[in-house]
Amino acid sequence: MSAEIDLLIRPEWIIPIEPAGTTLSGHALAVNDGNILALLPHEEAMQRFRPRRTVELPGQVVLPGLINLHTHAAMSLLRGYADDLPLMRWLSERIWPAEARHAGPDFVRAGTLLACAEMLRGGITTFNDMYFFPDAAAEAARRVGMRAVLGIVVIEFPTGYAADADDYLARGLAARDALSDDPLLSFCLAPHAPYTVADKTFDKIATLAAQLEIPVHVHLHETAHEIEESLKQHGVRPVERMRRLGLLGPQLIAAHGVHLDAGEIDLLAHEGCHVAHCPTSNLKLGSGIAPVSAMQSRGLNFGLGTDGAASNNRLDLFQEMRHAALLAKGASQNAESLDAHASLHAATLGGARALGLDERIGSLLPGKAADLCAVRLDEWLLQPCFDPASHLVYVAGREQVTHTWVNGKLVMSAGVPVQIGISELLDITGLWHTRLTS
Amino acid sequence: MSAEIDLLIRPEWIIPIEPAGTTLSGHALAVNDGNILALLPHEEAMQRFRPRRTVELPGQVVLPGLINLHTHAAMSLLRGYADDLPLMRWLSERIWPAEARHAGPDFVRAGTLLACAEMLRGGITTFNDMYFFPDAAAEAARRVGMRAVLGIVVIEFPTGYAADADDYLARGLAARDALSDDPLLSFCLAPHAPYTVADKTFDKIATLAAQLEIPVHVHLHETAHEIEESLKQHGVRPVERMRRLGLLGPQLIAAHGVHLDAGEIDLLAHEGCHVAHCPTSNLKLGSGIAPVSAMQSRGLNFGLGTDGAASNNRLDLFQEMRHAALLAKGASQNAESLDAHASLHAATLGGARALGLDERIGSLLPGKAADLCAVRLDEWLLQPCFDPASHLVYVAGREQVTHTWVNGKLVMSAGVPVQIGISELLDITGLWHTRLTS
Repeated sequence: MSAEIDLLIRPEWIIPIEPAGTTLSGHALAVNDGNILALLPHEEAMQRFRPRRTVELPGQVVLPGLINLHTHAAMSLLRGYADDLPLMRWLSERIWPAEARHAGPDFVRAGTLLACAEMLRGGITTFNDMYFFPDAAAEAARRVGMRAVLGIVVIEFPTGYAADADDYLARGLAARDALSDDPLLSFCLAPHAPYTVADKTFDKIATLAAQLEIPVHVHLHETAHEIEESLKQHGVRPVERMRRLGLLGPQLIAAHGVHLDAGEIDLLAHEGCHVAHCPTSNLKLGSGIAPVSAMQSRGLNFGLGTDGAASNNRLDLFQEMRHAALLAKGASQNAESLDAHASLHAATLGGARALGLDERIGSLLPGKAADLCAVRLDEWLLQPCFDPASHLVYVAGREQVTHTWVNGKLVMSAGVPVQIGISELLDITGLWHTRLTS
Repeated sequence: MSAEIDLLIRPEWIIPIEPAGTTLSGHALAVNDGNILALLPHEEAMQRFRPRRTVELPGQVVLPGLINLHTHAAMSLLRGYADDLPLMRWLSERIWPAEARHAGPDFVRAGTLLACAEMLRGGITTFNDMYFFPDAAAEAARRVGMRAVLGIVVIEFPTGYAADADDYLARGLAARDALSDDPLLSFCLAPHAPYTVADKTFDKIATLAAQLEIPVHVHLHETAHEIEESLKQHGVRPVERMRRLGLLGPQLIAAHGVHLDAGEIDLLAHEGCHVAHCPTSNLKLGSGIAPVSAMQSRGLNFGLGTDGAASNNRLDLFQEMRHAALLAKGASQNAESLDAHASLHAATLGGARALGLDERIGSLLPGKAADLCAVRLDEWLLQPCFDPASHLVYVAGREQVTHTWVNGKLVMSAGVPVQIGISELLDITGLWHTRLTS
């Protein structure tokens, strides 16, 4: 006797990420109660299940929803606000002054809404955020039905959001308490960077991370300048400083990790840390090229991040997958480095592991949440197609994403988020464009 | 009294490339007899001209059609046929065997047609091609109304196209003679590479280039391996070998130019040579990252190329503009390197200069051909927009191109080439997919 289920998806191909390197055809995905019930051959699916809804996707590939492991979502309002400047000038001359003037809860709610809409449009179902007013960011994510890991951001200097490190922590922890019943939301401790957070604050964060069992998300070894400053002020490189502060471990997500030597990669791998690889942002700010081939061969887990739209200028993991695969080859002068399946892994299961969410998301194993995206590979512009995995990384773009589901719920189709209209998004961006240029 | 003209285009912005770094608003482009008649303020345009057709483009930017300075168009049929392999293995194990079996005139006609359709869709109006059967490639370009520079390809070994170097030359020159009356077509001498062409053939090519006054398009310093082999076999690096053979000069287009030292960059700049920078292909094949920042500061002209779709896997100059700008910054760790306008320049006037066609195309000066593309920047996904030039390079993609004109004629609109239907393109790619996999 067959079982009634919510949804059966029948695409041309399925790339489940686990087992690694697999592309299935003739298979279907059974979804019930927001979870993946089974991944099985078409014929078997028709025998075992009576779906309330069937989605036929000829010429399309279904894969896990993409995971944006490092972003500052609200900064989408600063997309292209300043370009072609190095990190410290970009921050101090353009970004921080704009934020000081504008970055209140309204800015964060509006910017995160725009960012969520953009991410869902490109098949991203989860983002790991680091910004002020995480409660306002949470509102935006809930509005569109997106999974989010919100940063309990901490810096030493006062902003419109908080007065000092303790205040940042208190506000972030209060937001976490207030939102603890939402299954799509979780939190990270998010000390901004080694150059904006003091040792005593890192100490508190290490203690809190152990107590609360949540990740620590920090910019780390992003630029050569950061390392020079650390050597001047602390006598050691930031990774060593983090080690002494007890912060290395499976809870640590090092954003960027551009300037890591072999010993540091081995240390981070040995401690079970993770890197949020942000290839586009690292190039655009002139930070450099992260040694992803070495991370891969030395067993250091990494996911992919867009960083904020002010330094990218897209929140597009198709772009990051392509850039990760291309840069790994170009920088190592080894075309076999980071193949298409490895790049897809980084954008899904790599990110999920870093967030400690790999029991729930990142691959299409039965029992995990039905966080999915569907991508059409049958457009004339993408022909011919010999290998769907290769096409996802080297040919297709976010413009080919046709459906995005979070927890079994359709949150994007036909190019637009289900829960918010285009006109509202254009109103928001028009308003903030005026404010930012006046 | 106002003059009757063919076309008036009134976009939100115009980026004329000359003068450098300019973005105009409130301007119109007057087109007559296939040429740009004037670029002038809206009000003045309405007084001076009575257009037979007016195209209003609110929220859009118009710029010169993009110039693909290095491609093997027909290889679009091998898009994704082999990935994640280094150049020599990719060529000898996968590409050359497939070409030996399939690359006849039908393959070239079909593949080039698909490539032209893809390029027009992304605002590319001119391509510099290097492949067998240039007469078949010409048929495809003429079918869709695209401007092409066809390579008189030369290698030493026999293929289905020609028996030896002299035969290649004879066939290419015959094609050039046969097509000499088409104003959209011109020819380059295209010796494949230092490792596939002998000195005596290069000698003939140098003589022919001087006689015919046409460019010489050659793969040069693409990989470290190429340079090692040259040192072994000729005792000098390929650039020095080209110098001794009399090939350095304003007619030389060096495709790739990845491994150039400072002295070689100075030499090429001093001789007035050009580089076809192919950032994506150079990464994908593990060849490395070309020193574009140094080329820029030392005054070596460069344009952008996609290379063939087998090593990219897109014929997309929006991607190449972004990759050129990003890689220049990342590799030099200088975020100010190759700003948005410089990248736009490379994709237009840089390519035109390399081809010796800068009197005719590459910028929007009156008197040049109306080779244009229009790109919409008003989609919600791209908001907010503070600077159209930045958005073209860092945010928009070919999917935002709405119109492409060649010589004043509309050749792409609404996402499809005007002269060929989607169903025909899908039939072609379906047929060749079957042949290539059977």
